[in-house]
Amino acid sequence: MEYASKLLENAVYEVSQLPGIGKRTALRLVLHLLKQPEQQTTLLAEAILKLRTEINFCSSCYNISDTELCEICANPKRDASLVCVVEDIRDVMAIENTSQYQGLYHVLGGKISPMEGIGPQDLNIVPLITKIKEGNIKELIFALSSTMEGDTTNFYIYKQLEGIDVTTSTIARGIAVGDELEYADEVTLGRSILNRVPFENSMKAN
Amino acid sequence: MEYASKLLENAVYEVSQLPGIGKRTALRLVLHLLKQPEQQTTLLAEAILKLRTEINFCSSCYNISDTELCEICANPKRDASLVCVVEDIRDVMAIENTSQYQGLYHVLGGKISPMEGIGPQDLNIVPLITKIKEGNIKELIFALSSTMEGDTTNFYIYKQLEGIDVTTSTIARGIAVGDELEYADEVTLGRSILNRVPFENSMKAN
Repeated sequence: MEYASKLLENAVYEVSQLPGIGKRTALRLVLHLLKQPEQQTTLLAEAILKLRTEINFCSSCYNISDTELCEICANPKRDASLVCVVEDIRDVMAIENTSQYQGLYHVLGGKISPMEGIGPQDLNIVPLITKIKEGNIKELIFALSSTMEGDTTNFYIYKQLEGIDVTTSTIARGIAVGDELEYADEVTLGRSILNRVPFENSMKAN
Repeated sequence: MEYASKLLENAVYEVSQLPGIGKRTALRLVLHLLKQPEQQTTLLAEAILKLRTEINFCSSCYNISDTELCEICANPKRDASLVCVVEDIRDVMAIENTSQYQGLYHVLGGKISPMEGIGPQDLNIVPLITKIKEGNIKELIFALSSTMEGDTTNFYIYKQLEGIDVTTSTIARGIAVGDELEYADEVTLGRSILNRVPFENSMKAN
């Protein structure tokens, strides 16, 4: 595509670097900004710049936070003996929205993925092990996504815990609430039968 | 949704103001920026800010331009007696990509749309009429999209031209090249029969 202006071309290029946004969408977004009051562009640019330069990560769980210790870690009502290991802060938000979990989190910042060149040293695994070695954590819940990378990461951390007195568990895999059995894939259906739970438990969750 | 940080919430809010981007997509984009080197966010913010504050519009055709007169208007090889009326600069780019047009453009900046509160005074119509009254333009080609708003805008401009010696035309509507007849809608098919062209002409275009 030929752009009438270098400034436009540059803006389109930068916006199209975002995931899932191609050149055409980028052009549409940029032209939209041009039609809006100048203040909207200023606010947008300032918001993302400020986020990038001023953002803090909780020194304990690596969740995004405006303070040294995030709200969850700083909350004395939460159960500090229970730690849920998640991939990124979106997972923290998803679990928090269920209002079912009262423990703390540990955000890894990704999953081990040799294909993408992400090794254990790129994730917040060492601080997790250190935290567990301090001895206040009783149970570690793995809540990574159920993919090859997620399973690898779970197993890597599990191996690091050898000799340390801590219970490990993973979130239950099974048929989603509201799903029809006939459309479930075999692996999920198989696991949901193997890992069946007492009927009384299934009533408690609602 | 509850955000762990005000900075994050703010950035997500601003990004979700863009058309077609909801809160979830905005969060995904913002978290992506956080994972990238800080420089990428700086470049993005600078590019859109610079675009908004430094952009110029061609003083003749209202196309985006880095100079007073855009490249197309300043090109002496283009036919200045032919002006194509388009909605926005994306249409200029689309027509330029065909390499079939050698005249100039006039960018209206939108279409008359009472529903969205856009009247003739919000568009670059007055400068267009002034330009035509100067007498150097022989033909005006309407290339707005074939919607109620586009047709209204075409008709409004057409009415303003009463008593001025200028030929008006619209781009041909018809079956798209490569399309199957049986899937074409009736209005388009009907128009394409009414406005049939000599067979020799259809061969020239290729």
